[in-house]
This record gives sequence, C-alpha cells and structure tokens, in this order.
Amino acid sequence: MRRVAILGSTGSVGRQALEVIAAEPDLFRVCALAANQSVELLAEQVNKLRPAVISAGSVGARDRLMALLEYQPQVVAYGSAGLEAVALESNADVVLAATDGMSALHAVAASIERGMQIALANKELMVSAGANLCAAARRRGAHIIPVDSEHSALFQCLQGEQASAVASAILTASGGPFWNYSLEQIEAATPQAALEHPTWVMGAKNTIDSATLMNKGLEVIEASRLFDLKPKQIEVVVHRQSIVHGFVIFSDGSVKAQLAAPDMRLPIAFALSYPQRSVQAIGLSKTRAAIGLNGHTSSLSFEAIDERRFPALGLAYRALQSGGTYPAVLSAANEEAGRAFLSGRIKFTEICALVQRALDAHTPTADDIEAIEAADRWSRTFTRDMIGEAIRN
Amino acid sequence: MRRVAILGSTGSVGRQALEVIAAEPDLFRVCALAANQSVELLAEQVNKLRPAVISAGSVGARDRLMALLEYQPQVVAYGSAGLEAVALESNADVVLAATDGMSALHAVAASIERGMQIALANKELMVSAGANLCAAARRRGAHIIPVDSEHSALFQCLQGEQASAVASAILTASGGPFWNYSLEQIEAATPQAALEHPTWVMGAKNTIDSATLMNKGLEVIEASRLFDLKPKQIEVVVHRQSIVHGFVIFSDGSVKAQLAAPDMRLPIAFALSYPQRSVQAIGLSKTRAAIGLNGHTSSLSFEAIDERRFPALGLAYRALQSGGTYPAVLSAANEEAGRAFLSGRIKFTEICALVQRALDAHTPTADDIEAIEAADRWSRTFTRDMIGEAIRN
Repeated sequence: MRRVAILGSTGSVGRQALEVIAAEPDLFRVCALAANQSVELLAEQVNKLRPAVISAGSVGARDRLMALLEYQPQVVAYGSAGLEAVALESNADVVLAATDGMSALHAVAASIERGMQIALANKELMVSAGANLCAAARRRGAHIIPVDSEHSALFQCLQGEQASAVASAILTASGGPFWNYSLEQIEAATPQAALEHPTWVMGAKNTIDSATLMNKGLEVIEASRLFDLKPKQIEVVVHRQSIVHGFVIFSDGSVKAQLAAPDMRLPIAFALSYPQRSVQAIGLSKTRAAIGLNGHTSSLSFEAIDERRFPALGLAYRALQSGGTYPAVLSAANEEAGRAFLSGRIKFTEICALVQRALDAHTPTADDIEAIEAADRWSRTFTRDMIGEAIRN
Repeated sequence: MRRVAILGSTGSVGRQALEVIAAEPDLFRVCALAANQSVELLAEQVNKLRPAVISAGSVGARDRLMALLEYQPQVVAYGSAGLEAVALESNADVVLAATDGMSALHAVAASIERGMQIALANKELMVSAGANLCAAARRRGAHIIPVDSEHSALFQCLQGEQASAVASAILTASGGPFWNYSLEQIEAATPQAALEHPTWVMGAKNTIDSATLMNKGLEVIEASRLFDLKPKQIEVVVHRQSIVHGFVIFSDGSVKAQLAAPDMRLPIAFALSYPQRSVQAIGLSKTRAAIGLNGHTSSLSFEAIDERRFPALGLAYRALQSGGTYPAVLSAANEEAGRAFLSGRIKFTEICALVQRALDAHTPTADDIEAIEAADRWSRTFTRDMIGEAIRN
C-alpha cells in the first residue's frame, strides 16, 4: 500500500491520477490533496477520499472549502505553505506534483530534501528550477520520476542502463493542431482551433504549448535536467501518431524506444508505482494495432520540425544554452503569453514573439531558487506589460 | 581486457566478431578459436591472433591446420572435444558460440556448468537444447547473452525490468526475399533467389531460413527458452525495414522496442561487452534516418504474416507446444531440407513439408541432452531418407 499526496488534484493530471488510484485500492491510498481555486471539485474529492491533510490556493478558497467539508481533516491549509503541508505532513510515500506554474516549488524542494519519491508532472517547475531540484535530488537520493509521457519514455528506456552509455535522447512531438498549417494560417489561428489537439487529452495550457510546439521546447530543457544531458544531446522529431514517446540512442549504436497509446494514465501509474509496473494503466489494443499486431498493416512516421513556422523550439534551446534564470524567463513569458492568446488578447504568433522579447530583455543574476523565483516574476510582469502596451497601441 | 573464445570463427558471425574485436584491441583479446572445415581461413586467423588453444572440425582438418601454423599453440584439438577445449582450457571470460547445428552442444553445456558468460549465436542449439541449457544457466548463474539481433533486442528491452512485468515479446521479421511472392512463385523459387536477402547479410543457412520464415519459428522457440515465456506470450510481425528488432509489452500497457541499422556487429559487440556498451559497433546514420533525424520523413511499417504462404511459423509453434524433443526434430529436419533445397534436390515449398512430416513421424522419449541429440540424429536421417525417396520416385 503506497500513500500518495497530490499537489494539484483538480487539474487534468490530478484527476487522471485519482482515476488510476481509484482503480487500484489495494495498491494506493490518497493521504493528502491540494488544489488551487477549483474548490467545489476539491471538496468532492476530499469528502470521498477523506485525506488527513488538505489545502486550497488561497485563504478565501480554504474558507469556501471548509464550508463544504463533510469530515474533519487533521490539517486544512492554503497557499504555498499549504502545498508544503500536503507534501510533508501527510506521511506520504510519493508526492505527485501536478500543479501549474511555480506554486509548488518550495513543497517539491522540501520533499526532495527529505529524500521522498516525487512523481513530477509540473513541467514549468522542472524547466525553471530543474537544475537546482535535480542536483538536490542526486545529493539527497530522492527519486524524481517524470510524469510527462516523453520523459517517462526516456526514463523507461534508461532503466538498467549506465548513464555513460547514453549518446542522446530524442523526444517525439505530435506536431499539434497546426502542423499542416501555412505560416499565414498559423498567424490567423484562433484559441478554439489551438485547443483541438489531434491525439492527446490535456489541460488548456499544455494544449496551447502543443500548438506552438513550446511544449517540446520546455521538454528539451526538462530532459536536460532530469537526465543530465547537454543541449546537443537532445533532439526532437515530429511523430503524428503519438505512439512512440521517446528514443534513447546509446553509444554502441543501439536505440531503445518506448511506445504506448497516448494516455496520461500510463506515465502517471508508472511514476506512482515505480519501480514496480503494478498497474494495468491502459488497454493494449491501440498500441498493438500500431505495431501490426491486429492483423492490419500499420505505419509509424517521423519527420523534422519546420523552425520557420514553429520558432518555439529554437527559443528553448537558446534559453537552455544561456542557462541560469533564462529557462525560468522563457517558461513564465510563455505562460503569460499563452493565457493572453487564450483570452483573445494577442495573436497566436505573438506568443513566441513575446517570449523572445523577454529573453532579449532579461538581465541574468544569480541562479539559486530565489533568483529563479524573481526571474519568473520579472518575466511575467515584463510580458504582461508588453501585452498591455501592444493592446493600447 | 576481456578474453574471448570463439566457436565457429570462420562463419559469418565468427568473422564479424573478429572484426569487432580487431577494432577494439584495448577491450578484447582472442584466447581461443575453433572452426569446422574452413582450414585455410582458420589458419590465417590463428597465425594473426596467435591464440593458445585452437581446434578444427575433424582429425583431417586438424592435420591440415597444423601444416599451416606459423606458431606453436598450447593446444591443437579437433571435433566436439576440441570445441570443449577451446571454451574451457583457454581461460576465456566469454565464449562466443557461433557454430552451426549441434556440434557445440557439449562445449556450451560445459561452459554453462562453469558459470561462464556465453554469447550465443547458435540458434539451432538454443532451439533444440535451450530448455536444458537455460535451466542450467539459471542454476549456475551463467549469463547467456543472445547474439541474434531479435533476441538481443528483447534482452536489451528487458534490462532493468522485472520478469513478472513482462506481458509478451514481439519478434520482427524482414519478411525475406519472397514476402511479395504469390504461392505459385514461392513454389518455383530458386536457391539463387532465396539467397538474395533484402536487408541482412548472413550465412546461407540463415538466409534460406529467412526465406521460409522458419528463422522466425526458430526464434520464437529460442525466445521462449531465453526469456522463460509461454508460446502465447511470443508473437511475430513483419517489418520490412529491419530497423526495429523486437518489442517487449509490459503488464502496465507500456511497450519498449530496440532499433538499429541491420548489422550483426551490434548484437555481437553487445554480447561480448555486456553489461557495458563499450564498443561503437555501428554508425548511426541509417538508424537516425529511420527515425526522422536526418531531416527527411521516414516511415516504419508493421504487418501480419500470411501463414498460408509461410507455414513455417505454425510448425514452430506446434513444436514448441509439444515440447521435449520436438523442437530438435523441427530444427534438424529444417537444416537437412534447407541443404537439399540449396543443392537443387527439392523445391522450396518442400522444406516445410519435410519438417511437417518429421514432426508427424516423431515419437518423443525423454528430454535430456542425450535424448535431444538422438532426436536430432533421427530427424536428420528421417528427412534425408524422405528426400532420397522423393528423388527416386
């Protein structure tokens, strides 16, 4: 029986994690839940699962949550300290970090200091603070198991292999909804079109990132942190079928790949049950069909990214090369710009243009956790100012 | 520095192993060589590498070999005892079994009893006696590392994984030279056409097996032995590009694959250097192109086997299900029938027909090593008799 604390239980990954856990009552128990502002759903979750420690995003959200409780938890907290309480005061075996943005930074850093197992679904956290968090995890012997399907793929391919034998890692990209659009069509793309992802069911933020391909840029940085790889050791190919999630190329010329039907429940279950594969996370029929096991011919295709139409990847490599606080600036500017696009305030192509302006304008300082938080705040303010200015003009 | 003994140094795998070893003089040293009748080539190899222990296939071959020696080895032996001397009296760290047929059975069994590392390229040996050899290896803690590209793929995908998490293993088949032939064209196929393999460079016996697809049948049996899998846990798909060599499907719904350009030097180098990946066995350009890393779109396809045109696989599953001495009967009958086809004595489709007759006619007895050798001899005699009878009539 593994005790699971979930940071971000009302988001897409958090809800799918609760599905995985609900299907395996002999394997998992939810000991703590935290969410931000979706108080009704959080109340429904906690009233059903009755974890001892719960937390909401703000004091107001906590008060609304308390009014909906049908039991008496040991701890009802809020904000960043509430996330820390959920991770640390619940006697969890594994902490699933499925929050957005940087809110869970201190909770995750503190869990790593305790040597806990972290199932990490929060991409931005790993992009912005991954160098610090992964160094701490290596020092403290904490396992960070990625929940992203691509990084879970690489992690699985690396099982039983020596780090020194890794030549490079390849992330696959679905190409997103605009892969076949011309540059002109991309410029005119609507939020609704961007939200129609061909293969993956994800939250809105991830779906926009998947349309710009900034998700792959963030994943390149994340892979560099998680697997201690140099920028040139990480590559991206477009794979429209979303069956192969990653490749590792070894120094002897051998390549391993991980495949599965596109379903987040697999990397979630893998990270929660690691090092076991104890959960039948997804049915095999789609994957079996993709490798010709259902009697019909199938085909898996791979193609290069067109950087003219999709400049996000180049920006991410630039931020990774620059290091320090630059990845945090990239991630924060991208989040703010993506939100402005979703609310109809800027054009799709302005997302990457704004990220580029933030990188251009940033003055790096130190690269400790505080400097990274400061860079994140600076980048958000800078990007919002740029958006406001553009709208006013 | 790893000391390598090679059984079958003049065959296709043996020669490629010597290439791999020659390129890495700091990693490997050849301490013993054995071949069957290719005495001139063996003499050339031993005069260059000067191993302490050498052996030829017969007393006559040994005498011819001795006349060609330019140095004084410690042991010059012949026959089955000579193969044992090469494996056991050379102080080898790893024994590469790259012989054909059953000649190396006692040498390999004795190496396993000593707990040695075996790089196993001799498919027939594993098919006929694999149940016994693998049980002995588990008992003695000997590592058997497969040199077949498909089994090396499965072995690599299983690194770091628990045996209990394996749902099934998928072997890929190139389809061989007759994949697009009609049944009528297959019936009229010539030895020359069968020897023109589309993707792999192999010995004649393996190339014929690849045309009938009996090579996949033998590999299904081999996989069952090496990885302790039930017949229904092993499947085959046709993959014309020969880039993906195998898949492992895990119980959680995740799949791992191993990919590489089709080049035997990779599984050879892997097995010789295991658990390191210390040899840059093959260039990456072809594999990189196949996964879209050279800027062009690529496609990997998978399709089902048509058992009407290719009955070999069904025969192999039948032999595996029957167990005991049946796989030895299958393998020996196939070898004899394949040889008769190559020398123009029977039609291509008669290869599988003869194998089926041998399986039908076989009366199983015990299943120890002696019974397996006896079944092998019986099957060869039976098949040769059938061929002679068919030709006389």
